[in-house]
Amino acid sequence: MITQSPIFWLTPLASILALGFAAWFYMRMKSAPEGTSRMAEIASHVRAGAMAYLKQQYKIVGIFFIILTITFAILAYGFGLQNGWVPFAFITGGFFSGLAGFFGMKTATYASSRVAHAASQSLNSGLRLAFRSGAVMGLVVVGLALLDIAVWFLVLNHFIDDPDQGHKLTIITTTMLTFGMGASLQALFARVGGGIFTKAADVGADLVGKVEAGIPEDDPRNPATIADNVGDNVGDVAGMGADLYESYAGSILATAALGAAAFAGNPAAVADGTAYKAVIAPMIIAAVGTILSILGIFVVRTKEGASQRNLLDALSRGVNFSSLLIVILSWVVLYLLEIPNHWGIWGAIVTGLIAGILIGKTTEYYTSQEYKPTKHIAQNATTGPATVIISGLGVGMLSTAIPVITVVVGTILAYCFASGSWKFTPESMSMGLYGIGIAAVGMLSTLGITLATDAYGPIADNAGGNAEMSGLGPEVRKRTDALDSLGNTTAATGKGFAIGSAALTALALLASYVEELKIAVDHLQVETIEIAGHAVESAKILKANIPEFMTIFEVHLMNPKVIVGLFIGAMMAFLFCGLTMNAVGRAASRMVEEVRRQFREKPGILEGKDMPDYARCVEISTAGAQREMIIPSMLAVVVPIATGLLFGVPGVFGLLGGGLAGGFVLAIFMANSGGAWDNAKKYIEEGHLGGKGSIAHKAAVIGDTVGDPFKDTSGPSLNILIKLMSMVSIVTAGVNIAFTLF
Amino acid sequence: MITQSPIFWLTPLASILALGFAAWFYMRMKSAPEGTSRMAEIASHVRAGAMAYLKQQYKIVGIFFIILTITFAILAYGFGLQNGWVPFAFITGGFFSGLAGFFGMKTATYASSRVAHAASQSLNSGLRLAFRSGAVMGLVVVGLALLDIAVWFLVLNHFIDDPDQGHKLTIITTTMLTFGMGASLQALFARVGGGIFTKAADVGADLVGKVEAGIPEDDPRNPATIADNVGDNVGDVAGMGADLYESYAGSILATAALGAAAFAGNPAAVADGTAYKAVIAPMIIAAVGTILSILGIFVVRTKEGASQRNLLDALSRGVNFSSLLIVILSWVVLYLLEIPNHWGIWGAIVTGLIAGILIGKTTEYYTSQEYKPTKHIAQNATTGPATVIISGLGVGMLSTAIPVITVVVGTILAYCFASGSWKFTPESMSMGLYGIGIAAVGMLSTLGITLATDAYGPIADNAGGNAEMSGLGPEVRKRTDALDSLGNTTAATGKGFAIGSAALTALALLASYVEELKIAVDHLQVETIEIAGHAVESAKILKANIPEFMTIFEVHLMNPKVIVGLFIGAMMAFLFCGLTMNAVGRAASRMVEEVRRQFREKPGILEGKDMPDYARCVEISTAGAQREMIIPSMLAVVVPIATGLLFGVPGVFGLLGGGLAGGFVLAIFMANSGGAWDNAKKYIEEGHLGGKGSIAHKAAVIGDTVGDPFKDTSGPSLNILIKLMSMVSIVTAGVNIAFTLF
Repeated sequence: MITQSPIFWLTPLASILALGFAAWFYMRMKSAPEGTSRMAEIASHVRAGAMAYLKQQYKIVGIFFIILTITFAILAYGFGLQNGWVPFAFITGGFFSGLAGFFGMKTATYASSRVAHAASQSLNSGLRLAFRSGAVMGLVVVGLALLDIAVWFLVLNHFIDDPDQGHKLTIITTTMLTFGMGASLQALFARVGGGIFTKAADVGADLVGKVEAGIPEDDPRNPATIADNVGDNVGDVAGMGADLYESYAGSILATAALGAAAFAGNPAAVADGTAYKAVIAPMIIAAVGTILSILGIFVVRTKEGASQRNLLDALSRGVNFSSLLIVILSWVVLYLLEIPNHWGIWGAIVTGLIAGILIGKTTEYYTSQEYKPTKHIAQNATTGPATVIISGLGVGMLSTAIPVITVVVGTILAYCFASGSWKFTPESMSMGLYGIGIAAVGMLSTLGITLATDAYGPIADNAGGNAEMSGLGPEVRKRTDALDSLGNTTAATGKGFAIGSAALTALALLASYVEELKIAVDHLQVETIEIAGHAVESAKILKANIPEFMTIFEVHLMNPKVIVGLFIGAMMAFLFCGLTMNAVGRAASRMVEEVRRQFREKPGILEGKDMPDYARCVEISTAGAQREMIIPSMLAVVVPIATGLLFGVPGVFGLLGGGLAGGFVLAIFMANSGGAWDNAKKYIEEGHLGGKGSIAHKAAVIGDTVGDPFKDTSGPSLNILIKLMSMVSIVTAGVNIAFTLF
Repeated sequence: MITQSPIFWLTPLASILALGFAAWFYMRMKSAPEGTSRMAEIASHVRAGAMAYLKQQYKIVGIFFIILTITFAILAYGFGLQNGWVPFAFITGGFFSGLAGFFGMKTATYASSRVAHAASQSLNSGLRLAFRSGAVMGLVVVGLALLDIAVWFLVLNHFIDDPDQGHKLTIITTTMLTFGMGASLQALFARVGGGIFTKAADVGADLVGKVEAGIPEDDPRNPATIADNVGDNVGDVAGMGADLYESYAGSILATAALGAAAFAGNPAAVADGTAYKAVIAPMIIAAVGTILSILGIFVVRTKEGASQRNLLDALSRGVNFSSLLIVILSWVVLYLLEIPNHWGIWGAIVTGLIAGILIGKTTEYYTSQEYKPTKHIAQNATTGPATVIISGLGVGMLSTAIPVITVVVGTILAYCFASGSWKFTPESMSMGLYGIGIAAVGMLSTLGITLATDAYGPIADNAGGNAEMSGLGPEVRKRTDALDSLGNTTAATGKGFAIGSAALTALALLASYVEELKIAVDHLQVETIEIAGHAVESAKILKANIPEFMTIFEVHLMNPKVIVGLFIGAMMAFLFCGLTMNAVGRAASRMVEEVRRQFREKPGILEGKDMPDYARCVEISTAGAQREMIIPSMLAVVVPIATGLLFGVPGVFGLLGGGLAGGFVLAIFMANSGGAWDNAKKYIEEGHLGGKGSIAHKAAVIGDTVGDPFKDTSGPSLNILIKLMSMVSIVTAGVNIAFTLF
């Protein structure tokens, strides 16, 4: 057994601190007054709808998890193609990810009426309560992830019996990746299902309510309005929670596996503990980042009577505090761990942080109504819907350039810093890849607080809905709108981190796939393996460094199997978006029909005399989301396996490369087009170009509606798709070695 | 000097036949009566506008060609990094491609009034004249391409002095690729410039004319209407001509280079002429296909008084006749040439043909109003513009799956047939790649006739415009509409061939890049080359087969430089589309302002009392297109060079792979979304879902307007972008070897 270094215990400690503070913030939030009984009643409707949805969602997802767990158990115990821990690790990853979403949503649904009430007192107390509620989500996500990681690391260290400590570290870290796969699968279901739910309800409510019946947003006469608010919770809160749990855990696990890959083959590095330290380094940095996030949350305070500018400054102060300190403390951690080339590794972490910030700033530039691109789209609204759509698509496509260049430069810098050289020598590759992984960890290290500022947005949005439906005065709605628009700015940065880290993590996962393939070769215990018509000695594969390995398996860009994989990967991103876009369209049209039916059959609803049937709309969105989420999510599991069976290792590499490049660019395009349309509409609503009710406004509303599934369903799911495909390939690597058709 | 085999002379013969028949069809068309003087006058306006545009376009493109030719001359004569023939080959490629566009447009602009007049006699005579005019374009394109190829092959064979015949073949074929680059660059300018012109005029004319002033399409009172008709010529005719010239020549040249790569290194294959025959095989197949196309054109005849169904059958009969015979005769050609594994190579050709047909059928399924997807989009128009846009985007994204799977299966089959094995052994690679190239040649072999059915569409469309503006009766317009809609169906298949062949050709070009890199290494005459921090002997590189070459240059999917290239490649496709979409938006809004100004300043125009200033609108579209085409086209040249300078050979391979996969999928998505919106609108106009003037129709018109730049500007340019980036990399391969930053 590997003796844990004292510094390792920071990980469970940070986890317990995060969960403890989350519980404390939760209880403080719950003890806040809920406002009028009308407010409490509406909140309870939304809560009931959200919980009903989640219950249904977890049931269906549960079936998938059971099927996959049994499959993995058969592969592991029946065919010996996998480690026996895989099924268990897989299921706990899914469980904890689901739990993070559940807690986040519970908090959000209790917070809405309370934040609305607080906002009716003052803007400042509204901000404080909304932010603290968001912090529950942030801390639950990082706390549960660190808990899962620490416990599995201890358990596997205890039970896996291998005299070769280096080999043992490799087995432990690659096994732990399976729990990343569980988290990714759960997250994909949450994002896709939640995304379809929320946009079906939103589009349905808007089309009949706002456009046909001419009643305002969140009007209680609209039967879909509760479903719309439930959607904000299941999509933006539970979906985002599961998504970032997956990103956070994934980056730490991938980097730990790369640490083992870089050092565990070198007996000297194993003997002096360097290999072990490289494995725990990402965990420790994440733990320190979590403690700093808790401190940062306390830094966010404003004086009573502060302006909106002050509020934004307060939020930024908290995030900057944590980010700045993690820059300093991560150096200290690396220094204390005596990681080789600790300056270089630290450079990679700083590169990751800066890249995340740059991507966030770019998102802000392309989607905020304060800058040219969104104003340009708004301007195009004056000539009608066609030009607003064309310009939104054009701006979204252009907006992919800077994030891609940032990731390109970040990848190269992180690699060169960590490998300590500007030459990409084959020998430096494993350290360079470790650098890319740890850059992603650096980017996400202060997730506790960035996610708090991110989750705060939908909470403020919901509070606004509650205020509107409860008939609170326009000044309260104005305050919740101010809180909401503040959230949009901070959320842009959060999205930048999520998408940037996805690119780097996916890259790191490619390296883990190589390790897992080697383990599979080792596991098979055969003398030779046939690759591209030639028998290759297993021993040669096991001894190969990464470039040699790629040569043996012919994973170069002239191999048609790689090219074919690239095509399939790029196609997967589009196919997935097409399926989810169409799903939103179908679910929304069912909602439109239901709302029209209610208005038709009970004319009293529009006059405010009859109660609309809110529950029926929630049921329709739930049923639509559940039915529609299955095929796209299954594709993410089935296609990597099928590609592996057909085209072997080169095909899978192509698939992952094509999916990563195509999916990353498509995700930025969709997220930014959607965000820009949303804010172009807001810009016009602020009174520009004719304001509300003008031709430009009508055109901009159409742009916003098209953008809804872009930015809240298809776009954000792509991050997870990219990583889930990698995770599936890693977990089924044994199959890729044992069976290939071509 | 290599003695030409008698069969080689088929190539210049077919070229002369094609050009001769084109001239004959052209003269017959010109001798047809032009109708009323009003018809002749309108046609002369359109012709003058189109020629003015082309003159301006060729001026600007000329400047680029001069700059690049000088650059290549400096690289060749100054630094010795290139063959001295490169600048000349480059400039002739551009010249002939431009010539093909010029002749096509000249024909189309003379044909419009004549076809309108013929249609006023009978549907059948309208079809015959339109199709024969389209045939001029088809035959000019293949005739000029075969002429250019034959002449350069003879010239280089005469002047290049190399005792090693195999080496000489390699030098000749790779040098000839530079003329492919000239053709691609000319084609990109033509597609982008023409695409921006036509859509700016179209969107501008529709937005002010149809929507604001409420006058019908092609109404002579609309000042932008002549510009709109000019646009159909410069975009759909000249742009398409240059595009397919590039595709056709590119596939033949790439395959010839692969033939040299497969056999020229083997002294026995050089001695017995196999290497030479593998090089000329694609030329001969194209030549035979051209002769069959001429025969096929004569097969297209109908009896007087034939129904529309008969007309479509007549067109199909011509295409099927040529396609079926090429299947048989290509086997004969391969057999006579005694190409090794001629059954397998033949299998690759048939695979290519079938893949092209399948992609065409898929395009038809997803974009024709006879099938579910387009009807579904039309259905979604009933709930407004937002749902029509969402469903159009969704359908377009889904429609990428089958073409990608077709290309995947086609690539694998062509490779395996040609290499004669299902195992992808390193030894079989060069034959397999040759198979992929020749599959593309097979797909395009009967371009003479498929392009005739394709070019016939815009000619019929223009005839309709002429009929409307000349005030011919509604029954004439109905006939030209019938001709036009027939053209839409045949054009779908044509587009399938263009896009499918682009994917296969781009793949083949990757292999040519490897050959060109080797030639560059040879040319440098140094002992060793530094790659990834290690000195590698030049001799080792020159002896390497493709997998060994990829290993030496570290072009595997774990190299961050490759991954970074993939990101840039995928981003390029989006950036390019974003730039062109925005360009259309900007140019269209200038057109909107101009049309509004004319209506405002001369109220008599709308009453039919004043003449609108058509020329001013043509000028605006011309200026807009010229200004806006420069940046996207330059990017296609600059980015591959910059990527090569920064990240060397692995970066360029990544760029080309990412651009190919991402660009191919994006191109299908945009083309099919655009086509489906167009036909969803037509479906409603046929009287479904409320017909013209209904809410659904208004929404569908918005979808069609969004789809315009999708299907006529950005989408079709992507094919060329993909190949141009490969061509640029091939031509500047010497630079990639000599200078690399990382």
